[in-house]
Amino acid sequence: MTKLSSIQSPKDLQSLSIDELKSLAQEIRHNIIDVMAVNGGHLGSNMGIVELTLALHQTYNSPSDKFIFDVSHQVYVHKMLTGRLAQFPTIRQHKGLSGFSHPEESEHDHFFAGHAGTALSLALGVAKSRDLNSETFHVLPIIGDATFTCGLALEALNNIPQDLKRFTIILNDNTMSISDNVGAITHILEGKKETCSSFFKQHGLNYVGPIDGHNIEELLDTLEQVKESDHPTLLHVLTVKGKGLEIAEENPIPWHGCSPFDKVTGKKSGTPSKPKFPQVFGRHLLKMAEKDPSIVTVTPAMPLGSCITELMDKCPERCIDVGIAEGHSVTYSGGIGSDANKKVVCSIYATFLQRAFDNLFQDVCLQQIPVVFALDRSGIATGDGATHHGIYDISFLNAMPNMVICQPRDGHVLKELLESSFSWKKPTTIRYPNMATEEPDLPIKKRHLGKGEVLTKGTDIALISLGHMNQVAFSVRDLLAKENISVTIVDPIFVKPLDSELLTDVFLSHKYVATIEEHSVNAGMGILINTFAIRNGFSNVQIRNFGIPDTFIHQGSHNKILASIGLDPESIAQQILKDYAQEKVPAL
Amino acid sequence: MTKLSSIQSPKDLQSLSIDELKSLAQEIRHNIIDVMAVNGGHLGSNMGIVELTLALHQTYNSPSDKFIFDVSHQVYVHKMLTGRLAQFPTIRQHKGLSGFSHPEESEHDHFFAGHAGTALSLALGVAKSRDLNSETFHVLPIIGDATFTCGLALEALNNIPQDLKRFTIILNDNTMSISDNVGAITHILEGKKETCSSFFKQHGLNYVGPIDGHNIEELLDTLEQVKESDHPTLLHVLTVKGKGLEIAEENPIPWHGCSPFDKVTGKKSGTPSKPKFPQVFGRHLLKMAEKDPSIVTVTPAMPLGSCITELMDKCPERCIDVGIAEGHSVTYSGGIGSDANKKVVCSIYATFLQRAFDNLFQDVCLQQIPVVFALDRSGIATGDGATHHGIYDISFLNAMPNMVICQPRDGHVLKELLESSFSWKKPTTIRYPNMATEEPDLPIKKRHLGKGEVLTKGTDIALISLGHMNQVAFSVRDLLAKENISVTIVDPIFVKPLDSELLTDVFLSHKYVATIEEHSVNAGMGILINTFAIRNGFSNVQIRNFGIPDTFIHQGSHNKILASIGLDPESIAQQILKDYAQEKVPAL
Repeated sequence: MTKLSSIQSPKDLQSLSIDELKSLAQEIRHNIIDVMAVNGGHLGSNMGIVELTLALHQTYNSPSDKFIFDVSHQVYVHKMLTGRLAQFPTIRQHKGLSGFSHPEESEHDHFFAGHAGTALSLALGVAKSRDLNSETFHVLPIIGDATFTCGLALEALNNIPQDLKRFTIILNDNTMSISDNVGAITHILEGKKETCSSFFKQHGLNYVGPIDGHNIEELLDTLEQVKESDHPTLLHVLTVKGKGLEIAEENPIPWHGCSPFDKVTGKKSGTPSKPKFPQVFGRHLLKMAEKDPSIVTVTPAMPLGSCITELMDKCPERCIDVGIAEGHSVTYSGGIGSDANKKVVCSIYATFLQRAFDNLFQDVCLQQIPVVFALDRSGIATGDGATHHGIYDISFLNAMPNMVICQPRDGHVLKELLESSFSWKKPTTIRYPNMATEEPDLPIKKRHLGKGEVLTKGTDIALISLGHMNQVAFSVRDLLAKENISVTIVDPIFVKPLDSELLTDVFLSHKYVATIEEHSVNAGMGILINTFAIRNGFSNVQIRNFGIPDTFIHQGSHNKILASIGLDPESIAQQILKDYAQEKVPAL
Repeated sequence: MTKLSSIQSPKDLQSLSIDELKSLAQEIRHNIIDVMAVNGGHLGSNMGIVELTLALHQTYNSPSDKFIFDVSHQVYVHKMLTGRLAQFPTIRQHKGLSGFSHPEESEHDHFFAGHAGTALSLALGVAKSRDLNSETFHVLPIIGDATFTCGLALEALNNIPQDLKRFTIILNDNTMSISDNVGAITHILEGKKETCSSFFKQHGLNYVGPIDGHNIEELLDTLEQVKESDHPTLLHVLTVKGKGLEIAEENPIPWHGCSPFDKVTGKKSGTPSKPKFPQVFGRHLLKMAEKDPSIVTVTPAMPLGSCITELMDKCPERCIDVGIAEGHSVTYSGGIGSDANKKVVCSIYATFLQRAFDNLFQDVCLQQIPVVFALDRSGIATGDGATHHGIYDISFLNAMPNMVICQPRDGHVLKELLESSFSWKKPTTIRYPNMATEEPDLPIKKRHLGKGEVLTKGTDIALISLGHMNQVAFSVRDLLAKENISVTIVDPIFVKPLDSELLTDVFLSHKYVATIEEHSVNAGMGILINTFAIRNGFSNVQIRNFGIPDTFIHQGSHNKILASIGLDPESIAQQILKDYAQEKVPAL
């Protein structure tokens, strides 16, 4: 890797010839494949953006000129060219490089990003500051075609001042979202050059393109021209997702974000024997939908991750991907569900539901429409890090009148909640993480709204643990058993409404209660149980809340993150022992 | 009012001639003016939509055919024609008619609405259900031109299936948002017919228009044609905001939503002697911005309500209205604020910040950009009702790492917080209601992050009351004084971070603490103080949380609403007396 390792900063690209850039592109691709084969990560988009990133860095002067990457899972090449090549093998790992743009890593990264559609809006802000300061640097939001399904990007597109200078939108069009693209603007981009041009001109933009994003000469020539433009400009660049890895070019969807794989065969590393919660969800929802034609499912661009592609294939009329349009996905679900004979499931990641709070509030809860939200990726997002954790949703879901919040401890309870939820006739959120789970072959019982369960009965202390954290609770119990402390484990199942009868029993029969959740500890189940205790006069019971501290948590494996924040069984057991010895809970 | 009062349902319009419709339009306008002169309300948009509403109801068959009003402040005429004429004088009043679409009032209202941009998305959902059921009714989202700055509407516009039948978008174009329109799509709508047509055709829509929205013949003829279209269609109707009331036609911005006025002179009823919080904010921010060129203000279409029109006039480069685009307003603020030398104020209503939770999270808090959010209309929204109360924001603001939340008790403290907030170097939310306040002429002191105050010192019980609710606390104190109970009043000023030193003192020196806030009681300051007490071991202190119950609250005057939910001084004092007698807090 002689050439690539000689690039310490983008300045080192300046003197390179076209041929040298081409061979550098080769090296970069090999490096991406090598590291992705071990770590997994966003392979497709990075393989597609190699030449474009090289050309941008040779033409512009980063970090004075500012590249603002949308979503920013496509920054691997940019990272390699901006002094982070040596750390690249640590990407997406605990204490390693982030898989996204990360200002704390480099002056070449201007914003944290992870959720799509922010780059145009941020870039307009940066350009506004620049102009107020009479500075003259270039601002270049780098966006994908799928961004144009996202309302935030469209709000910004509508807001570009026509006299804005040194503002060039790089549209990296690989004709793909994470899944297939949807929507009218996709058709515009796929259509004739004249149609594209007319669309962007109507938005006050100078349109250039489309050009071949793998042709370095053409890229460099065009960027040089564009650089001199007096008007805000959109440069339309066509790229191929997965370019250079045949298997990924042919199957871009599974190779968008890949798990570790064999470089020679392309075979992904051994599938685990246990299913993950989303797989249980997808399979069971399919079974239900095949039996019940009133079930309609909506997803904002996540059919693959949410494991509903088979449902989409088998019931295309009743499983709708609206694209990266989270707000619309929720309001649209409300619209469908306004027909009382429809059972609507909105399948959405917890972190993306943050984009639909108002839709949830006005278009579902206020209308009392019983949409069921299958809240995938609730909990720690592992390799994706701070932008993607689903650890804030209880805060705002709890604030909504009419909303039900529940979480299954395993695949079986997930199926029970899914089947039972429609009978509650209320907007309902079923949270679950992207983790392996048990799926015991038991009869599916009806779950009653707001009813929790005692999983094991002890005499000294009680652990109230949510969802998959019941597993942690059992390990804590085993550790405490060695100290002769007898533990009750309570699975509340419901966070809203809380099971007051069950909680009353727990508080009457234990002197110490700990809550355990994989959610922000200042905004989740724990503080609601604290309030329950206070409002019901259980002042003689010590309470300790375990959860995620009120700071941003970066990427890492699930276990490493839990251990680093004291949410692993050992840390919890130790803290409980300490509390129990003192018989008084000190400040958290 | 003979003709109008004979219309019991839209069916009664069927047989009317054009001339009869015209005279009905006159009657309707008189009725709007009569009621608005007394109640205040959304005058402009309703005066503008009279003929259009009549033509729609004569052409289509409501409620089988479904009119879905966007924002829905323009439903007054629709309400008069659908059996609610007699109640019309109660509009926006406690237990009266809602000022918005309200399904509990009438089968002709299909959704609650209040926030802009939802109608297309809801209508697509309704049409989806219809088609799955093989039903054949018409779906008609009725939207305004300003809706096209809103990302949610644009997400839906992008998502209209090209083969959708009996789906007609009525674009009621009065060339106005609440304030002046902004953005590229506005230019498209104002431009040539060909440009408009091309824009909507690119989105897969059949475009018809523009037509004169005050010409009943033209409206009826065109609607008849459109009704038969096989493709999704957009009918572009030009209307005049305030049509028929000269003063409102000439000054549409202040007449968008008006307070009671004199029908003859148009003069609005006596201005109160005390300023309102937003006025104090607007005046003081102007003063600050004139001194400090680094201050930049952003508003999503609310310059008038937020009292920053003068700032906008005097510093147009540094006070930017981005239109109804709440998500963009926050992310754009983050972009501007990424320049550490800029002081960014994002002026936004609490209820509209609900649309920007993810932007706040990812584009401000995660980046640690110290944007100051001036959170107007925090608290009860009086006449606007359930869609508009700003009573959920603490729940999600508290969940954000890095966020500061504070609330001034009067205009003077508002100025102090505003001046001090930039020195804290953190994303900061300053909440305040749209209420009259005191603005004593005192020197402006620096406020320290996380420092509250004891306002009056007693010996028996402590009231911790947020913002303007300190006034209520003082009344409670006076009531309790009659019962020989001595009250301490604590203004925490900060909800995040809480003032632990002050709270520790309070809990150590009182046996009973009540929290008082005009915020959802299950998701606000009270539950955070409960958690503070538990985590710090103050189990011997009784705590009672006063706030807004976990149900949707409809419109009414501030006092009537507070009394109806037990948040008035008398109810609070009574409850405290009861608790105090029992010395044990029963379940809320």
